[in-house]
Amino acid sequence: MLLGAIEAGGTKFVCAVGTKKGEILERISFSTTTPEETLKKVMGFFIDKEIKALGIGCFGPIDLDKNSKTYGYITSTPKPGWRNYNILGELKKYFDIPINFDTDVNGAALGEAKWGSGIGLDSLIYLTVGTGIGGGVYIHGNLVHGMTHPETGHIFVGRAEEDKYKGKCPYHGDCLEGMASGPAIEERWGINPYELSKDHIAWDLEAHYLAQGLVNYILIISPKKIILGGGVMKQKQLFPLIRKKVVERLNGYVSHKNILENIDDYIVYPELGDDAGICGALALADLVLC
Amino acid sequence: MLLGAIEAGGTKFVCAVGTKKGEILERISFSTTTPEETLKKVMGFFIDKEIKALGIGCFGPIDLDKNSKTYGYITSTPKPGWRNYNILGELKKYFDIPINFDTDVNGAALGEAKWGSGIGLDSLIYLTVGTGIGGGVYIHGNLVHGMTHPETGHIFVGRAEEDKYKGKCPYHGDCLEGMASGPAIEERWGINPYELSKDHIAWDLEAHYLAQGLVNYILIISPKKIILGGGVMKQKQLFPLIRKKVVERLNGYVSHKNILENIDDYIVYPELGDDAGICGALALADLVLC
Ligand SMILES: Nc1ncnc2c1ncn2[C@@H]1O[C@H](COP(=O)(O)OP(=O)(O)O)[C@@H](O)[C@H]1O
Ligand SMILES: Nc1ncnc2c1ncn2[C@@H]1O[C@H](COP(=O)(O)OP(=O)(O)O)[C@@H](O)[C@H]1O
Ligand SMILES: [Zn+2]
Ligand SMILES: [Zn+2]
Repeated sequence: MLLGAIEAGGTKFVCAVGTKKGEILERISFSTTTPEETLKKVMGFFIDKEIKALGIGCFGPIDLDKNSKTYGYITSTPKPGWRNYNILGELKKYFDIPINFDTDVNGAALGEAKWGSGIGLDSLIYLTVGTGIGGGVYIHGNLVHGMTHPETGHIFVGRAEEDKYKGKCPYHGDCLEGMASGPAIEERWGINPYELSKDHIAWDLEAHYLAQGLVNYILIISPKKIILGGGVMKQKQLFPLIRKKVVERLNGYVSHKNILENIDDYIVYPELGDDAGICGALALADLVLC
Repeated sequence: MLLGAIEAGGTKFVCAVGTKKGEILERISFSTTTPEETLKKVMGFFIDKEIKALGIGCFGPIDLDKNSKTYGYITSTPKPGWRNYNILGELKKYFDIPINFDTDVNGAALGEAKWGSGIGLDSLIYLTVGTGIGGGVYIHGNLVHGMTHPETGHIFVGRAEEDKYKGKCPYHGDCLEGMASGPAIEERWGINPYELSKDHIAWDLEAHYLAQGLVNYILIISPKKIILGGGVMKQKQLFPLIRKKVVERLNGYVSHKNILENIDDYIVYPELGDDAGICGALALADLVLC
């Protein structure tokens, strides 16, 4: 039986068909342009595929309240053309199969829980640090939606004293995403983040902000694992910097061996790597059939 | 059928017997002194009561990992005599009935969900602002434990620019609890918080810190209600100040009517009032029989 998966990102879309075991059999990816043009490419890919269910991990914020008039819409995104766009409604016109629509990061969190770094755990958080910062939250073996859905990238953070950068979030200025997303790094230093040398002070500052986020996640939801993906996290030198700052800040207060002894296994890069998003969408498709 | 409840606080203990409906039939309360003396009073209260289950909402941090050697211990508390104390083990010597041991605030969150402000909701957070700041987290109709348990009071907050107070948390200095607990207010202004006038600048500053915490909780777990209890929240003028700052900071990003229209019903004082803690312990007792 084949499942369909869409990783609907603000930068690019990935569509795939795969199996209940998390294998991707065929995939396509293309840049996100206008909603109409982008969805036409989605339809084109799936037209000759015999899929039994579809999972969509979508950039957001999105409306996940089934009682809401705007259920299935992308809501307050700053991305031109996509604000208040009924993406789920458009897709439903073409697909007469069960659809599971969720945030891209909730999808990735589920994918990592099923097939990646979180196998066997009933609680984890998946954070992507890329064009934006967003987190998927998995608790009690289920994805968290709550009132809307988590937007873990937009929490308050405290500035590093020497950092005068104003922040890039159009809603909050200097929230975590505003200070630590890829575009924030780029604007602050005037250079593409992947061109910065591994020992540039930028990475210590990046770890300063990300560690604050992680400390807050640990204190608020006490996840059993924290998985950090997205383009910026390809800078692997960030991991030891972040882990050290998390331990320092917690300062013994959370006395658990994950923090005190096994931090290297607690804060990790996604096992599924760049496929966390698309495998996550596949996991969403699988979930709707369970 | 009678249930037993213990609200084990760092300042005072409350013991009660009650029913599955949340009625308290008899109660006693006394100051928390040494563990031995305090537990003797607990036993004295329950000795002639025919209870079928016991719920304990305990101050923390506590070890809730059933596989841990220190399961049921109070761990890294700064409270003299109680650090690394096996409270559950001691109680088990006396009670040969099902016991549900959890944090005081998880208990209160459960109590509010069953019998208080959160009836019918499967997701909420209960925060107490008193001698310390702590939060109980209820998601998918269950209390969150995760790796350890939430310690929502110890998150990072950004200082108000004019605020030079160093913070009172022995672990983190200027975390939320360090800046906004009752003792922090008292130390900052040199006066008991309940003696400060209702229009004192202290309350605006207090709302500044608490609103930051709430914004982070909303962004990380998206709870369907936020319930604020504890001694400091008796200052009801805090509620409008906090609500206003939460809405301002979110700045339209979380576009849900709870935030945009019904914030007065979203951030509330506990329906169970001062009984949130002891009713919560009763709810914990009830849960262990379900
Ligand atoms: N190897 C890298 N090192 C540092 N930054 C990177 C790297 N690759 C991508 N980025 C940054 O991450 C952002 C893109 O994030 P990515 O996760 O790839 O996509 P998106 O978030 O749009 O889905 C860009 O700001 C880019 O500069
Ligand atoms: N009416 C009030 N107004 C302001 N602060 C109060 C009030 N009542 C108690 N407090 C403060 O709250 C703290 C005690 O919190 P409380 O919730 O009563 O107990 P605990 O947290 O120890 O269980 C003290 O610091 C006290 O100064
Ligand atoms: Zn933001
Ligand atoms: Zn603290």
